[in-house]
Amino acid sequence: MSFTRGYFAGTVTTLFAVGIYQYVNISQRHIQHHHESQLSGDLKEQVKRKILKYGVPSKGEEPKVFTNHVLSYDQSKKTPVWVAERITKEQIQGSASRKYSRFMPDPQIQSLFSTENADFLGSGWSRGHMAPAGNNKHDQRAMDDTFYLSNIVPQDIKNNAGFWNRFEMYCRELTKKFDGVQIISGPLTLPTETDEKGQELVVYPVIGKNQVSVPTHLYKVILVESNGSPSAIGCFIVPNKPIENKYSLHEFQVSLKEVQRRTGVEFFPNLRNADLQDNLCSVDSCTLGK
Amino acid sequence: MSFTRGYFAGTVTTLFAVGIYQYVNISQRHIQHHHESQLSGDLKEQVKRKILKYGVPSKGEEPKVFTNHVLSYDQSKKTPVWVAERITKEQIQGSASRKYSRFMPDPQIQSLFSTENADFLGSGWSRGHMAPAGNNKHDQRAMDDTFYLSNIVPQDIKNNAGFWNRFEMYCRELTKKFDGVQIISGPLTLPTETDEKGQELVVYPVIGKNQVSVPTHLYKVILVESNGSPSAIGCFIVPNKPIENKYSLHEFQVSLKEVQRRTGVEFFPNLRNADLQDNLCSVDSCTLGK
Repeated sequence: MSFTRGYFAGTVTTLFAVGIYQYVNISQRHIQHHHESQLSGDLKEQVKRKILKYGVPSKGEEPKVFTNHVLSYDQSKKTPVWVAERITKEQIQGSASRKYSRFMPDPQIQSLFSTENADFLGSGWSRGHMAPAGNNKHDQRAMDDTFYLSNIVPQDIKNNAGFWNRFEMYCRELTKKFDGVQIISGPLTLPTETDEKGQELVVYPVIGKNQVSVPTHLYKVILVESNGSPSAIGCFIVPNKPIENKYSLHEFQVSLKEVQRRTGVEFFPNLRNADLQDNLCSVDSCTLGK
Repeated sequence: MSFTRGYFAGTVTTLFAVGIYQYVNISQRHIQHHHESQLSGDLKEQVKRKILKYGVPSKGEEPKVFTNHVLSYDQSKKTPVWVAERITKEQIQGSASRKYSRFMPDPQIQSLFSTENADFLGSGWSRGHMAPAGNNKHDQRAMDDTFYLSNIVPQDIKNNAGFWNRFEMYCRELTKKFDGVQIISGPLTLPTETDEKGQELVVYPVIGKNQVSVPTHLYKVILVESNGSPSAIGCFIVPNKPIENKYSLHEFQVSLKEVQRRTGVEFFPNLRNADLQDNLCSVDSCTLGK
């Protein structure tokens, strides 16, 4: 009997030990897996070809190039993601005029994802340029190109004609002080409210038949160069609403990291200068004209 | 005197005519410009190199490839844009189990744009798979890969365990009837409210330190194949909230065009079959199990 009991006890203990060993072993294998290197490049290509048999789903974000600006378009929001320019003293002077320019749909955007003037007219929102018309006085065609609706967001009219306009003039002033001025502008939809559960909420209107997203904020990322090399970066996030003259540009400055986290965009993937001053307002007064 | 008057009248009339001619001419030039072909490819490359001197701003949307799914990630919303799979009868059977899998940040996503488990825990929102764990029973690694947070959206827990789970089971049922089943899933933030001015509003929470966007809706685009060729497409947009059993899948069906307009994504850029039936529920019952 004691043999049988001993045999039984031994069996149970062993099974238990083997069970624990296997459990730990499998768990470890699992944990190892998640820290293994990713699939090899070849295997990735195979999986991609198999699963994306009918092509890679596309948001159409490849850059669209115009006479004097380049942009990426958000086919879901029906506004640009970012609009990039480089401006110089020469480009902001000349006889090109808005009176010859017309807002119109961008033929580079598929009609399913495009906006129309009718979306804006009567909506209570103005058609706000991201690459400003006024940065292109040297060339009528470059100015005309800024009127394609791919460069436009629904903007509060007082913001557009007020603070934002003064901000754009400030950017043009920078060309007197710096030999290169790169500017990237765009819209943001950020949380602005809190609900009864304490959750932060993103709230924004969509306008017109094409449901164009009205941004809660607008951003500009400005990189200035001295002697052909980057010398400072200034990033600004401005609410899309009337802003009184008493507010200065400084109050809207944020870090490059912050505007990248908010937009989801890396603005200067090839910029290697880690020591670059991320504070334009420390090398310039950041003073807006009245 | 009459000569002087005549001379004066002639001058005024001529100036007026010349003025009109020039105005019309400039307007026409302008209108012509906007209908001219775009910049040439060479010129575009020049402009791009000049303006994007520090690299092309990147939203990091290039596809990420896993053992059995491929996805594009939205660095701004901190959720996937789309997650693609192909499932077969064989893949949905096997011994792989969720009990060996752990939710964890995806090392392919930069930490600035990544989410963490802590964003979800205690938020009131569950971690909802887009490529479901249950589609990968054939392979533990494939299943594990679906637990990377790049495949996850904040999902109402009743929706996740209820209607959405039944919908996922329905997709697996399709493998019995069709020899190929391609599924693309993802989140949406659609207008759901109207403000006092009558504007449609998009309203959604963001959760956790990383402000992960909580979608208002989820979508699935399903393409089924018979004899290796596409035979039908079914597209569904489902609200991210509890859905009672009395609702059937039919009620959430939309056209491919509609889900493309909403997401901004072209799902099958290489699909040429214009006659393809855009209504899975007419070739299948679209009946969910209980």
